[in-house]
Amino acid sequence: MTTVENGVNVQALLEARTALQGAPEAAQFTWRASSKWQNGVHSQTRIQKYYGLGQEQSHKTESVFEADHPEVFAAEDNGITPIEYLLVGLAACLTAGVASVAQNRGIQLRSVEASVEGQHDIRGILGADSDVRNGFNDVKVTFNIDADATKQEIEALVAQSQKRSAVFDALTNPTNVSVEVA
Amino acid sequence: MTTVENGVNVQALLEARTALQGAPEAAQFTWRASSKWQNGVHSQTRIQKYYGLGQEQSHKTESVFEADHPEVFAAEDNGITPIEYLLVGLAACLTAGVASVAQNRGIQLRSVEASVEGQHDIRGILGADSDVRNGFNDVKVTFNIDADATKQEIEALVAQSQKRSAVFDALTNPTNVSVEVA
Repeated sequence: MTTVENGVNVQALLEARTALQGAPEAAQFTWRASSKWQNGVHSQTRIQKYYGLGQEQSHKTESVFEADHPEVFAAEDNGITPIEYLLVGLAACLTAGVASVAQNRGIQLRSVEASVEGQHDIRGILGADSDVRNGFNDVKVTFNIDADATKQEIEALVAQSQKRSAVFDALTNPTNVSVEVA
Repeated sequence: MTTVENGVNVQALLEARTALQGAPEAAQFTWRASSKWQNGVHSQTRIQKYYGLGQEQSHKTESVFEADHPEVFAAEDNGITPIEYLLVGLAACLTAGVASVAQNRGIQLRSVEASVEGQHDIRGILGADSDVRNGFNDVKVTFNIDADATKQEIEALVAQSQKRSAVFDALTNPTNVSVEVA
Protein backbone atom coordinates (compact mmCIF):
# COMPACT_ATOMS: atom_id res chain seq x y z
CA MET A 1 0.00 0.00 0.00
CA THR A 2 1.43 3.38 -1.04
CA THR A 3 1.25 6.40 1.21
CA VAL A 4 -1.16 9.10 0.12
CA GLU A 5 0.39 12.58 0.24
CA ASN A 6 -1.78 15.58 -0.60
CA GLY A 7 0.25 17.86 1.67
CA VAL A 8 -2.45 18.17 4.33
CA ASN A 9 -1.48 17.41 7.93
CA VAL A 10 -4.70 15.59 8.79
CA GLN A 11 -3.26 14.23 12.02
CA ALA A 12 -2.77 17.78 13.35
CA LEU A 13 -6.31 18.72 12.33
CA LEU A 14 -7.81 15.68 14.06
CA GLU A 15 -5.81 16.52 17.20
CA ALA A 16 -7.02 20.13 17.03
CA ARG A 17 -10.61 18.90 16.77
CA THR A 18 -10.19 16.83 19.92
CA ALA A 19 -8.35 19.60 21.80
CA LEU A 20 -10.91 22.29 20.91
CA GLN A 21 -13.85 20.12 21.98
CA GLY A 22 -12.59 20.68 25.53
CA ALA A 23 -11.51 24.31 25.01
CA PRO A 24 -14.23 26.20 23.13
CA GLU A 25 -12.72 29.61 24.02
CA ALA A 26 -9.55 28.74 22.06
CA ALA A 27 -11.72 28.05 19.00
CA GLN A 28 -12.97 31.66 18.84
CA PHE A 29 -11.16 33.36 15.97
CA THR A 30 -11.41 36.97 14.79
CA TRP A 31 -10.38 37.60 11.20
CA ARG A 32 -9.59 41.21 10.31
CA ALA A 33 -9.23 43.42 7.26
CA SER A 34 -8.42 47.15 6.93
CA SER A 35 -9.32 49.06 3.83
CA LYS A 36 -8.51 52.52 2.54
CA TRP A 37 -10.35 54.40 -0.15
CA GLN A 38 -8.02 55.42 -3.00
CA ASN A 39 -10.14 57.35 -5.53
CA GLY A 40 -13.46 56.77 -7.26
CA VAL A 41 -14.59 53.23 -6.39
CA HIS A 42 -10.99 52.02 -6.02
CA SER A 43 -9.95 50.79 -2.56
CA GLN A 44 -7.03 48.88 -1.13
CA THR A 45 -7.48 46.28 1.63
CA ARG A 46 -4.74 44.86 3.84
CA ILE A 47 -4.80 41.64 5.86
CA GLN A 48 -2.22 40.31 8.28
CA LYS A 49 -3.24 40.09 11.96
CA TYR A 50 -5.94 37.91 13.41
CA TYR A 51 -6.89 36.50 16.80
CA GLY A 52 -7.23 32.84 17.70
CA LEU A 53 -6.17 30.10 20.10
CA GLY A 54 -6.51 32.67 22.88
CA GLN A 55 -3.98 35.17 21.55
CA GLU A 56 -3.01 37.59 18.79
CA GLN A 57 -1.70 35.85 15.67
CA SER A 58 -0.15 37.00 12.42
CA HIS A 59 0.13 35.73 8.88
CA LYS A 60 3.77 35.42 7.76
CA THR A 61 3.32 38.41 5.47
CA GLU A 62 0.82 41.17 4.87
CA SER A 63 -1.46 40.66 1.84
CA VAL A 64 -2.75 43.66 -0.12
CA PHE A 65 -5.80 43.56 -2.38
CA GLU A 66 -7.03 46.12 -4.91
CA ALA A 67 -10.73 46.42 -5.70
CA ASP A 68 -12.32 48.65 -8.30
CA HIS A 69 -15.06 48.57 -10.90
CA PRO A 70 -14.43 47.77 -14.57
CA GLU A 71 -14.33 50.31 -17.38
CA VAL A 72 -17.87 49.36 -18.50
CA PHE A 73 -19.02 50.87 -15.18
CA ALA A 74 -17.12 54.10 -16.01
CA ALA A 75 -14.36 53.20 -13.52
CA GLU A 76 -10.62 52.52 -13.88
CA ASP A 77 -10.43 48.72 -13.38
CA ASN A 78 -7.51 48.88 -10.95
CA GLY A 79 -8.58 45.51 -9.51
CA ILE A 80 -11.42 43.00 -9.53
CA THR A 81 -14.86 44.06 -8.33
CA PRO A 82 -15.75 43.50 -4.66
CA ILE A 83 -18.28 40.76 -5.41
CA GLU A 84 -15.66 38.76 -7.36
CA TYR A 85 -13.70 38.39 -4.09
CA LEU A 86 -16.54 36.17 -2.85
CA LEU A 87 -15.87 33.77 -5.74
CA VAL A 88 -12.17 33.62 -4.84
CA GLY A 89 -13.05 32.69 -1.26
CA LEU A 90 -15.60 30.08 -2.33
CA ALA A 91 -13.30 28.32 -4.82
CA ALA A 92 -10.41 28.32 -2.34
CA CYS A 93 -12.47 27.05 0.58
CA LEU A 94 -14.05 24.14 -1.30
CA THR A 95 -10.68 23.20 -2.84
CA ALA A 96 -8.97 23.19 0.57
CA GLY A 97 -11.77 20.96 1.82
CA VAL A 98 -11.38 18.52 -1.07
CA ALA A 99 -7.64 18.19 -0.31
CA SER A 100 -8.24 17.70 3.42
CA VAL A 101 -11.01 15.13 3.03
CA ALA A 102 -9.02 13.25 0.35
CA GLN A 103 -6.05 13.04 2.70
CA ASN A 104 -8.28 11.78 5.51
CA ARG A 105 -9.84 9.14 3.21
CA GLY A 106 -6.54 7.98 1.73
CA ILE A 107 -7.27 9.29 -1.77
CA GLN A 108 -4.30 10.62 -3.75
CA LEU A 109 -5.15 13.77 -5.70
CA ARG A 110 -3.36 14.57 -8.94
CA SER A 111 -5.16 17.79 -9.89
CA VAL A 112 -8.14 19.78 -8.66
CA GLU A 113 -9.57 22.63 -10.67
CA ALA A 114 -12.70 24.62 -9.92
CA SER A 115 -14.62 27.00 -12.15
CA VAL A 116 -16.99 29.36 -10.39
CA GLU A 117 -19.71 31.47 -11.96
CA GLY A 118 -21.85 34.01 -10.15
CA GLN A 119 -24.99 35.32 -11.87
CA HIS A 120 -25.61 38.96 -11.03
CA ASP A 121 -28.40 41.23 -12.20
CA ILE A 122 -26.84 44.68 -11.76
CA ARG A 123 -30.20 46.45 -11.83
CA GLY A 124 -30.24 45.86 -8.05
CA ILE A 125 -27.11 47.81 -7.15
CA LEU A 126 -27.94 50.53 -9.67
CA GLY A 127 -31.37 51.03 -8.13
CA ALA A 128 -33.01 50.37 -11.51
CA ASP A 129 -35.52 47.85 -10.14
CA SER A 130 -36.35 47.47 -6.45
CA ASP A 131 -37.48 43.85 -6.99
CA VAL A 132 -33.93 42.83 -8.01
CA ARG A 133 -31.58 41.86 -5.19
CA ASN A 134 -28.13 43.46 -4.90
CA GLY A 135 -26.10 40.25 -4.61
CA PHE A 136 -25.75 37.16 -6.79
CA ASN A 137 -28.89 35.47 -8.11
CA ASP A 138 -27.05 32.18 -7.87
CA VAL A 139 -23.58 30.71 -7.92
CA LYS A 140 -22.33 27.56 -9.60
CA VAL A 141 -19.09 25.71 -8.87
CA THR A 142 -17.81 22.99 -11.24
CA PHE A 143 -14.94 20.78 -10.16
CA ASN A 144 -12.58 18.89 -12.45
CA ILE A 145 -10.69 16.41 -10.29
CA ASP A 146 -8.07 13.87 -11.29
CA ALA A 147 -7.53 11.45 -8.42
CA ASP A 148 -6.86 7.87 -7.58
CA ALA A 149 -10.58 7.26 -6.95
CA THR A 150 -13.89 6.43 -8.62
CA LYS A 151 -16.28 9.13 -9.82
CA GLN A 152 -18.52 8.24 -6.88
CA GLU A 153 -15.67 8.65 -4.37
CA ILE A 154 -14.75 11.99 -5.94
CA GLU A 155 -18.35 13.18 -5.70
CA ALA A 156 -18.38 12.14 -2.04
CA LEU A 157 -15.18 14.16 -1.42
CA VAL A 158 -16.78 17.26 -2.89
CA ALA A 159 -19.99 16.72 -0.91
CA GLN A 160 -18.06 16.42 2.36
CA SER A 161 -15.98 19.51 1.56
CA GLN A 162 -19.20 21.46 0.98
CA LYS A 163 -20.61 20.24 4.30
CA ARG A 164 -17.61 21.64 6.24
CA SER A 165 -16.92 24.74 4.18
CA ALA A 166 -16.84 28.09 5.98
CA VAL A 167 -17.41 30.11 2.82
CA PHE A 168 -20.13 27.84 1.40
CA ASP A 169 -22.02 28.35 4.69
CA ALA A 170 -21.36 32.11 4.68
CA LEU A 171 -22.87 32.46 1.19
CA THR A 172 -25.79 30.06 1.49
CA ASN A 173 -26.94 31.13 4.97
CA PRO A 174 -27.48 34.62 6.42
CA THR A 175 -24.91 36.27 8.70
CA ASN A 176 -25.47 39.34 10.83
CA VAL A 177 -23.29 42.22 9.55
CA SER A 178 -23.28 45.47 11.55
CA VAL A 179 -21.93 48.64 9.97
CA GLU A 180 -20.98 51.62 12.14
CA VAL A 181 -19.37 55.02 11.80
CA ALA A 182 -16.67 55.65 14.43
CA MET B 1 -19.88 76.65 -4.86
CA THR B 2 -16.91 74.35 -5.37
CA THR B 3 -17.11 71.20 -7.47
CA VAL B 4 -17.05 67.94 -5.54
CA GLU B 5 -14.64 65.41 -7.05
CA ASN B 6 -14.43 61.94 -5.52
CA GLY B 7 -13.46 60.36 -8.82
CA VAL B 8 -16.80 58.64 -9.39
CA ASN B 9 -18.57 59.22 -12.71
CA VAL B 10 -22.06 59.45 -11.23
CA GLN B 11 -23.51 60.80 -14.46
CA ALA B 12 -22.53 57.60 -16.30
CA LEU B 13 -24.03 55.46 -13.52
CA LEU B 14 -27.32 57.38 -13.59
CA GLU B 15 -27.44 57.00 -17.38
CA ALA B 16 -26.74 53.26 -17.03
CA ARG B 17 -29.58 52.95 -14.54
CA THR B 18 -32.00 54.57 -16.99
CA ALA B 19 -30.71 52.54 -19.95
CA LEU B 20 -30.90 49.20 -18.11
CA GLN B 21 -34.46 49.84 -16.93
CA GLY B 22 -35.47 49.33 -20.55
CA ALA B 23 -32.96 46.55 -21.29
CA PRO B 24 -32.97 44.02 -18.45
CA GLU B 25 -31.07 41.40 -20.50
CA ALA B 26 -28.05 43.73 -20.72
CA ALA B 27 -28.02 43.92 -16.90
CA GLN B 28 -27.33 40.17 -16.54
CA PHE B 29 -23.69 39.76 -15.57
CA THR B 30 -21.72 36.55 -14.99
CA TRP B 31 -18.60 36.91 -12.84
CA ARG B 32 -16.07 34.08 -13.11
CA ALA B 33 -13.14 32.65 -11.20
CA SER B 34 -10.89 29.65 -11.93
CA SER B 35 -8.91 28.00 -9.20
CA LYS B 36 -6.18 25.36 -9.16
CA TRP B 37 -5.13 23.30 -6.20
CA GLN B 38 -1.40 23.71 -5.47
CA ASN B 39 -0.62 21.48 -2.47
CA GLY B 40 -2.14 20.91 0.94
CA VAL B 41 -4.86 23.55 1.41
CA HIS B 42 -3.06 26.04 -0.84
CA SER B 43 -4.87 27.08 -4.02
CA GLN B 44 -4.45 29.77 -6.63
CA THR B 45 -7.44 31.56 -8.17
CA ARG B 46 -7.41 33.64 -11.36
CA ILE B 47 -9.94 36.24 -12.48
CA GLN B 48 -10.10 38.14 -15.74
CA LYS B 49 -13.07 37.44 -18.03
CA TYR B 50 -16.71 38.11 -17.28
CA TYR B 51 -19.95 38.53 -19.20
CA GLY B 52 -22.19 41.58 -19.19
CA LEU B 53 -23.96 44.16 -21.34
CA GLY B 54 -24.82 41.29 -23.69
CA GLN B 55 -21.26 40.23 -24.51
CA GLU B 56 -17.97 38.82 -23.22
CA GLN B 57 -15.91 41.36 -21.27
CA SER B 58 -12.45 41.38 -19.78
CA HIS B 59 -10.65 43.14 -16.97
CA LYS B 60 -7.58 45.04 -18.19
CA THR B 61 -5.32 42.48 -16.53
CA GLU B 62 -5.62 39.05 -14.96
CA SER B 63 -5.60 39.04 -11.14
CA VAL B 64 -4.14 36.08 -9.24
CA PHE B 65 -4.96 35.24 -5.62
CA GLU B 66 -3.30 32.80 -3.25
CA ALA B 67 -5.29 31.15 -0.46
CA ASP B 68 -3.97 28.86 2.24
CA HIS B 69 -4.37 28.20 5.94
CA PRO B 70 -2.07 29.70 8.58
CA GLU B 71 0.69 27.84 10.38
CA VAL B 72 -1.50 27.43 13.49
CA PHE B 73 -3.66 25.13 11.32
CA ALA B 74 -0.56 23.09 10.41
CA ALA B 75 -0.45 24.66 6.94
CA GLU B 76 2.08 26.84 5.09
CA ASP B 77 0.38 30.27 5.12
CA ASN B 78 1.05 30.95 1.44
CA GLY B 79 -1.88 33.36 1.41
CA ILE B 80 -4.88 34.49 3.46
CA THR B 81 -7.57 32.01 4.40
CA PRO B 82 -10.58 31.63 2.09
CA ILE B 83 -13.00 33.21 4.58
CA GLU B 84 -10.83 36.34 4.84
CA TYR B 85 -11.54 37.00 1.15
CA LEU B 86 -15.15 37.70 2.16
CA LEU B 87 -13.94 40.54 4.39
CA VAL B 88 -11.94 42.03 1.49
CA GLY B 89 -15.06 42.02 -0.68
CA LEU B 90 -17.24 43.51 2.05
CA ALA B 91 -14.86 46.38 2.90
CA ALA B 92 -14.31 47.18 -0.78
CA CYS B 93 -18.01 47.10 -1.68
CA LEU B 94 -19.15 49.37 1.14
CA THR B 95 -16.26 51.78 0.49
CA ALA B 96 -17.10 52.00 -3.23
CA GLY B 97 -20.68 52.72 -2.24
CA VAL B 98 -19.68 55.50 0.16
CA ALA B 99 -17.65 57.18 -2.62
CA SER B 100 -20.48 56.86 -5.15
CA VAL B 101 -23.21 58.13 -2.83
CA ALA B 102 -20.99 60.99 -1.62
CA GLN B 103 -20.38 62.05 -5.23
CA ASN B 104 -24.11 61.93 -5.96
CA ARG B 105 -24.91 64.01 -2.85
CA GLY B 106 -22.19 66.60 -3.47
CA ILE B 107 -20.09 65.60 -0.44
CA GLN B 108 -16.30 65.86 -0.82
CA LEU B 109 -14.49 62.93 0.79
CA ARG B 110 -10.99 63.40 2.19
CA SER B 111 -10.40 59.90 3.56
CA VAL B 112 -12.41 56.72 4.08
CA GLU B 113 -11.07 53.85 6.14
CA ALA B 114 -12.90 50.69 7.11
CA SER B 115 -11.96 48.06 9.69
CA VAL B 116 -13.73 44.74 9.37
CA GLU B 117 -13.85 41.95 11.93
CA GLY B 118 -15.39 38.54 11.40
CA GLN B 119 -16.05 36.32 14.43
CA HIS B 120 -15.52 32.67 13.62
CA ASP B 121 -15.86 29.66 15.89
CA ILE B 122 -13.65 27.11 14.14
CA ARG B 123 -15.24 24.15 15.93
CA GLY B 124 -17.75 24.15 13.05
CA ILE B 125 -15.32 23.52 10.19
CA LEU B 126 -13.30 21.07 12.31
CA GLY B 127 -16.42 19.03 13.04
CA ALA B 128 -15.84 19.43 16.79
CA ASP B 129 -19.41 20.52 17.54
CA SER B 130 -22.32 20.01 15.16
CA ASP B 131 -24.23 22.91 16.75
CA VAL B 132 -21.57 25.39 15.62
CA ARG B 133 -21.98 26.82 12.13
CA ASN B 134 -19.10 26.73 9.63
CA GLY B 135 -19.15 30.40 8.66
CA PHE B 136 -18.85 33.65 10.59
CA ASN B 137 -20.94 34.10 13.74
CA ASP B 138 -21.11 37.79 12.93
CA VAL B 139 -19.25 40.52 11.12
CA LYS B 140 -18.66 44.12 12.14
CA VAL B 141 -17.55 46.98 9.90
CA THR B 142 -16.36 50.28 11.41
CA PHE B 143 -15.89 53.30 9.15
CA ASN B 144 -13.64 56.28 9.83
CA ILE B 145 -14.58 58.98 7.35
CA ASP B 146 -13.17 62.47 6.94
CA ALA B 147 -15.47 64.46 4.68
CA ASP B 148 -16.94 67.85 4.11
CA ALA B 149 -20.16 66.84 5.90
CA THR B 150 -21.83 66.50 9.30
CA LYS B 151 -21.71 63.28 11.30
CA GLN B 152 -25.37 62.75 10.40
CA GLU B 153 -24.69 63.18 6.68
CA ILE B 154 -21.78 60.73 6.92
CA GLU B 155 -23.95 58.17 8.68
CA ALA B 156 -26.56 58.60 5.95
CA LEU B 157 -23.86 57.97 3.29
CA VAL B 158 -22.88 54.72 4.97
CA ALA B 159 -26.51 53.64 5.37
CA GLN B 160 -27.22 54.24 1.68
CA SER B 161 -24.05 52.38 0.66
CA GLN B 162 -25.19 49.39 2.74
CA LYS B 163 -28.63 49.49 1.11
CA ARG B 164 -27.13 49.14 -2.39
CA SER B 165 -24.17 46.89 -1.59
CA ALA B 166 -23.84 43.64 -3.54
CA VAL B 167 -21.54 42.03 -0.97
CA PHE B 168 -23.53 43.19 2.08
CA ASP B 169 -26.58 41.51 0.52
CA ALA B 170 -24.60 38.37 -0.39
CA LEU B 171 -23.45 37.94 3.21
CA THR B 172 -26.64 38.90 5.05
CA ASN B 173 -29.07 36.97 2.83
CA PRO B 174 -28.89 33.40 1.50
CA THR B 175 -27.80 32.62 -2.05
CA ASN B 176 -28.21 29.31 -3.85
CA VAL B 177 -24.79 27.76 -4.51
CA SER B 178 -24.67 24.55 -6.57
CA VAL B 179 -21.53 22.43 -6.57
CA GLU B 180 -20.94 19.82 -9.28
CA VAL B 181 -18.25 17.43 -10.44
CA ALA B 182 -17.69 17.61 -14.20
